[in-house]
Amino acid sequence: MKNVPNRVILPESELPRQWYNVQADMPERHDPYINPGTGKPATSEDFYPIFAEELARQEFSTERFIDIPDEVRELYKTYRPSPLHRAYRLEKALDTPARIYYKYEGGNTSGSHKLNSALPQVYYNKRQGITRLTTETGAGQWGTALAMAARFFGLDLTVFMVKISSMQKPYRKAIMETFGADVAASPSDRTASGRKILEQDPECLGSLGVAISEAVEMAVTTPGSRYVLGSVLNQVLLHQSVIGLEAKLQLEMVDEYPDLVIGCSGGGSNMGGLMAPFMRDRLTGARKPYFIAVEPAACPSFTRGKYAYDFCDTAKVTPLARMYTLGSGFMPSSIHAGGLRYHGMSPILSKLYHDGFLDEARAEKQNDVFAAAKLFAGEEGILPAPESSHAIKAAIDEALRCKQSGEARTILFGLSGHGHFDMGAYISYNEGSITDYIPTDEELQKGFDTLPKVE
Amino acid sequence: MKNVPNRVILPESELPRQWYNVQADMPERHDPYINPGTGKPATSEDFYPIFAEELARQEFSTERFIDIPDEVRELYKTYRPSPLHRAYRLEKALDTPARIYYKYEGGNTSGSHKLNSALPQVYYNKRQGITRLTTETGAGQWGTALAMAARFFGLDLTVFMVKISSMQKPYRKAIMETFGADVAASPSDRTASGRKILEQDPECLGSLGVAISEAVEMAVTTPGSRYVLGSVLNQVLLHQSVIGLEAKLQLEMVDEYPDLVIGCSGGGSNMGGLMAPFMRDRLTGARKPYFIAVEPAACPSFTRGKYAYDFCDTAKVTPLARMYTLGSGFMPSSIHAGGLRYHGMSPILSKLYHDGFLDEARAEKQNDVFAAAKLFAGEEGILPAPESSHAIKAAIDEALRCKQSGEARTILFGLSGHGHFDMGAYISYNEGSITDYIPTDEELQKGFDTLPKVE
Repeated sequence: MKNVPNRVILPESELPRQWYNVQADMPERHDPYINPGTGKPATSEDFYPIFAEELARQEFSTERFIDIPDEVRELYKTYRPSPLHRAYRLEKALDTPARIYYKYEGGNTSGSHKLNSALPQVYYNKRQGITRLTTETGAGQWGTALAMAARFFGLDLTVFMVKISSMQKPYRKAIMETFGADVAASPSDRTASGRKILEQDPECLGSLGVAISEAVEMAVTTPGSRYVLGSVLNQVLLHQSVIGLEAKLQLEMVDEYPDLVIGCSGGGSNMGGLMAPFMRDRLTGARKPYFIAVEPAACPSFTRGKYAYDFCDTAKVTPLARMYTLGSGFMPSSIHAGGLRYHGMSPILSKLYHDGFLDEARAEKQNDVFAAAKLFAGEEGILPAPESSHAIKAAIDEALRCKQSGEARTILFGLSGHGHFDMGAYISYNEGSITDYIPTDEELQKGFDTLPKVE
Repeated sequence: MKNVPNRVILPESELPRQWYNVQADMPERHDPYINPGTGKPATSEDFYPIFAEELARQEFSTERFIDIPDEVRELYKTYRPSPLHRAYRLEKALDTPARIYYKYEGGNTSGSHKLNSALPQVYYNKRQGITRLTTETGAGQWGTALAMAARFFGLDLTVFMVKISSMQKPYRKAIMETFGADVAASPSDRTASGRKILEQDPECLGSLGVAISEAVEMAVTTPGSRYVLGSVLNQVLLHQSVIGLEAKLQLEMVDEYPDLVIGCSGGGSNMGGLMAPFMRDRLTGARKPYFIAVEPAACPSFTRGKYAYDFCDTAKVTPLARMYTLGSGFMPSSIHAGGLRYHGMSPILSKLYHDGFLDEARAEKQNDVFAAAKLFAGEEGILPAPESSHAIKAAIDEALRCKQSGEARTILFGLSGHGHFDMGAYISYNEGSITDYIPTDEELQKGFDTLPKVE
């Protein structure tokens, strides 16, 4: 075994030149997207009015490797390769024979992995001559990443931020504005859908569904505009594969290969990106790492959802996808891991889970997750995002299992972001005021009742 | 000229094993500390009741290199070596022939360079058998760094946080608590000095002077306790030399040497640390880099202060030091660079400036500093702390001067921290509500009137 540094650093020259597309190696592709207007399988052209054409094509691509454009790679270099940490202090605190590694994606100002997809999405839009983008943001990580990417490439950006979120997180709004984004509290008077809601209820605090409606409406009604989305889609998983590709090279530098790959999953972009090259090994039979996706017990799409066709967006404008879902009408409780409050799950991850390649999904309760986060912060000196802390919880549990069994397993987990803008959640946890909400079967049924009927 | 990556990364194996003590190479040492009780030059023993003995000895040491203890070096490795960035995008935006480098110290959860001194200070206290530390914090960076260090070494810590600051920055308080620190809003009922003030004025919002008084009182009246301080002192500059030592190695990796070394200066720990090995070259005559210290126009100790004996702390408990000072009674306006609101300046930096080795000090106005910060963030993708943005302002000005003269100078500046917890300041700037306060001569005179009389 080599002497492993605290942070395994990949030289800039080793930054991947291509993304890896896991669709190329899946024995079966995920069920086709369906055009909700025609009820027929959607094509890339069906996505053109909403997304840039190259991104729509990537959505359907089965090419194994896709070149990272030079312009994107140059911007990746301002914060990538990201470090792979060996959790020496956490291992010691747990008294475990396991070797724990984490890939840390919080070392850029957006604070998470979201920038990895924001940059190419803006780039492809710019190349097509698009000058203005729209999106929505709830927790604010995606909006921040996109504001940075839009600033770098010189595109205008309007972010529809759920009004309650913009009130609770004024700092997130301020960062986006510092990077030049136009941030509108949603519902807003900028769109017909926003105005309609405000007419009915001027005090409406908004929802992700409303914000998406406004963003899509502005994109499709303003010439030269397109809409962009930060998770769930195949194109996003493709871009995020840079996380796993780097991690694999870094582990090779220290003669390691993960027995376990653990990631939190909301829409699936972080888990999908981290696991990509290891899943390739699994799909081709080269190696057999074990995959664990971790989600909040409050929004349990993998563990309690249905594998069914549903809308990817709560505004029901994008094509239908078959995925693990709680129904687009499912209203998750106000939990602190805002990035994991999504009703569905990436179609690719859903298919891999359904077919047994993604081995396990776990749902964790909020207080357990924050206890893990606090232990991790105290040992490793990094204050994790509530989302990422779901993966920490599972990694700790697996390390403790190794302690019992005596197995020196190699655990890799994704630390997708830092918690600097989530201190309100930590305050609640420190005060003991976080509750462990778990939806009842009846509450879940209400969500399932909103599933569209697809033949 | 070598091909320079965006981030010059020093391998963990190259992390310095010794700190560099600039006092070893100064032709004249700074004027002696004076014991305010006896009026005589202070010895290291005079510091023992307040500081750990090894730290008190470092304060007076003229050893050129001092070993970094293994325990400290192991913890440095969790976030060091820190990256040296080449500001390619900023250079392009400025259209300058200058090559701009910045050493980024914001890549740890404390968010600044403060952790570099917090770790050894806690370590030396622990080695002496101290179990409990006290300190004060205003802006919160030092308190956060110390909370992390205390957690790592298992010491108890009480942080007296200026009450108005703890109200305005609840997130900073929450981070410290997440790392296990006991945070008391000052004035508090924990100390006699705090209780006395609360009796007179129950609504008192506190001040740094009051917080220091409480922290020192608790340290000297509680067995097994000591007080720690995050800037100004020689020991702190010694620990912070790790910044410059790494930066010098990183520049050597790409065949560079700085023509200009620029740092913001409040108490002097950041500037002193960054410049240390380059100042050695200057003092020994090996090279002649040009040094610029940048301070806020609202708190201009270098540019408008007196070179005089004064108290290092506004509570007047530490020995007197000769330094550039506005008087410990100077009340700086409420500016956003909280870390630069200090009435005095490191005795070492003061002496070097007085003797002409630190070439230049500049005072910058708040709006100019935030304009520089916003340009930097938009190009480099890092949201800088208001403190660090003073150095950015000067670096941009120098790069623009190079554009006029056509000189391809090499500029190194210190990016001492990120601004994730300073978004309130950015909000004010984006709203246009920041004013450029500059104290009048009369206001400065009020501060000078509080200078102690020393023969």
